[in-house]
Amino acid sequence: MNDTRLDYDRYDRIRPIRWTGSALELLDQRKLPFVVEYVTCTDSAAVAEAIHSLTVRGAPAIGIAAGWGVVLAARDVEAANGAEAVAKLEPAIQQLNAARPTAVNLAWALARMRRSLANAGADWREVLAREAQAIADEDLAANRRMGELGAGLIAPGSDVMTHCNTGSLATAGFGTALGVIRAGVAQGRIAKVYAGETRPWLQGARLTAWELQQDGIAPTLVADAAAAHLMKTGAVDWVIVGADRICANGDTANKIGTYSLAIAARHHGVKFMVVAPSSTVDMATASGDAIHIEERDPGEMFAIGGVRTAAPGITAWNPVFDVTPAELIDAIVTEKGVVERPSVASMKATFGG
Amino acid sequence: MNDTRLDYDRYDRIRPIRWTGSALELLDQRKLPFVVEYVTCTDSAAVAEAIHSLTVRGAPAIGIAAGWGVVLAARDVEAANGAEAVAKLEPAIQQLNAARPTAVNLAWALARMRRSLANAGADWREVLAREAQAIADEDLAANRRMGELGAGLIAPGSDVMTHCNTGSLATAGFGTALGVIRAGVAQGRIAKVYAGETRPWLQGARLTAWELQQDGIAPTLVADAAAAHLMKTGAVDWVIVGADRICANGDTANKIGTYSLAIAARHHGVKFMVVAPSSTVDMATASGDAIHIEERDPGEMFAIGGVRTAAPGITAWNPVFDVTPAELIDAIVTEKGVVERPSVASMKATFGG
Repeated sequence: MNDTRLDYDRYDRIRPIRWTGSALELLDQRKLPFVVEYVTCTDSAAVAEAIHSLTVRGAPAIGIAAGWGVVLAARDVEAANGAEAVAKLEPAIQQLNAARPTAVNLAWALARMRRSLANAGADWREVLAREAQAIADEDLAANRRMGELGAGLIAPGSDVMTHCNTGSLATAGFGTALGVIRAGVAQGRIAKVYAGETRPWLQGARLTAWELQQDGIAPTLVADAAAAHLMKTGAVDWVIVGADRICANGDTANKIGTYSLAIAARHHGVKFMVVAPSSTVDMATASGDAIHIEERDPGEMFAIGGVRTAAPGITAWNPVFDVTPAELIDAIVTEKGVVERPSVASMKATFGG
Repeated sequence: MNDTRLDYDRYDRIRPIRWTGSALELLDQRKLPFVVEYVTCTDSAAVAEAIHSLTVRGAPAIGIAAGWGVVLAARDVEAANGAEAVAKLEPAIQQLNAARPTAVNLAWALARMRRSLANAGADWREVLAREAQAIADEDLAANRRMGELGAGLIAPGSDVMTHCNTGSLATAGFGTALGVIRAGVAQGRIAKVYAGETRPWLQGARLTAWELQQDGIAPTLVADAAAAHLMKTGAVDWVIVGADRICANGDTANKIGTYSLAIAARHHGVKFMVVAPSSTVDMATASGDAIHIEERDPGEMFAIGGVRTAAPGITAWNPVFDVTPAELIDAIVTEKGVVERPSVASMKATFGG
């Protein structure tokens, strides 16, 4: 199938974020895949809480939700123009920004919302709402573009592995790494898709497997620890993952476990692709060494679905992200183009800064 | 603390297998760490089922249980001497042998039981019972010896990571890899112990964390996928694991995820130690390529503690073991000695064959 004829209605049917015009509806990703239920947020504090509690997750989706969060905050603000509004909105923006520490898209989306108000006049509310919608629309368009670019790197008949959830659920729609996989399947380039279950939060088992299934793509679930053995059997041609932050040298922060996959991929000669919108690229951060790695409640390691898995009194270490160094990455795919074998020079050529 | 003064009563208080003289009691490892309950087996079919269902697990423990299983089978056999008995016991032995396909100790223990009968006369029942007890007693002694040998390789102040459960629970007592860790902690060589949770069966979270806690050693639990990141932070000096089968060239089959740890360890310059009794060494198998990797029910990947984690209709790949090639192993520790940087020649020098 030709790229331009990719049937998006068939391969992209899930939307995690819905703006009703007066409220933000978020597909509750803590309850998937068993309950499909939207949570309604009518103020920005509720959006911040939804981001913090992982009701909405995935770096691009968090940015989009935060944009709508600012629109909701504006309801309680009286201002003659954008400059006055932005000052009054600052506490709500700060609260949204603090909801998750690692995802650069969150800060990026909030900066866009702030910037849109700089020269806005009395119509600042409309300007703000248009900006939030633009963030969402541009994300979907970027994902479809990345899907085409990334799939173009994959030889027909390839089998791929992914990690965490980078799909429609993590974005405005279509997904980043999962968008490349959708496009690759639609184009007949990808034969088989393996999804790592992604402990401790099981995004792969709960979200990616469900999401692909909804769109008629049957994934095979594997334990994170089994990925290296899977690669050894020759079953994987590409590992395709998303990103929470990409540094100026190409170092990439992503869900814990990504780095382990990258090491195993290089060991077996399996190619490694990072797919993320250019909003994830942070040219102000020189390398992965400068990234603060978020740690979450160790309790996530002691229970699954409310069922305790470890004895009381045990200690755990629960980092949410790790950093994959650029030298283990074969290609970074953004809507602005593909950076192969990323380096400071090649990143700068594509992203400036 | 000097090796010879290691306080075993303090550091080794758990026994997974108890022979009452008339029945075999197995600590039900499916119910740990929340319920401490022994299952009583009064015939060999029950022992085979307990092995198959993972009531008892761990390669050495499986061998010991199978030995007692043959003793139980002998109750239903009338024979004038050992040679006659062994022929009549063969169906029960075959059933026990088929309960788990990968662990070489199972076949090894059953071969010992068979062999013990070869020249036995009318007292063949007593010979058989003595042999089963000897298998258990020798295992405990071997583990204590391996603990001393393995700990001797570890510099004081080291931090270590382990995988799966290789402790008292997996053996007659003390453990293999966990025996080295027990000895290392007792000698002040090991400061901190990280335990990988070991999906899908969570032996690390459920068993290792509990077992170490019982003996006053506080482990830190980590997701399997976080191990590489942990190593990158410099927190691990040695990865110490057990084995289900060690080939003539040093290739080692062990719990799924071991191979991933070995690749990450080498990538970070972290040392990698395999600890197993010499009964795990299979000089008749030239290399890991010849090992059949057991696959278990994909359903283990869809639920944890009875709580469903993936949508209905998903496929999974659930290999139980992987093979770590000898070139990624720094030391193989058995009660017969330490093989550093294992090769066909160095393995043959220690184990003959």
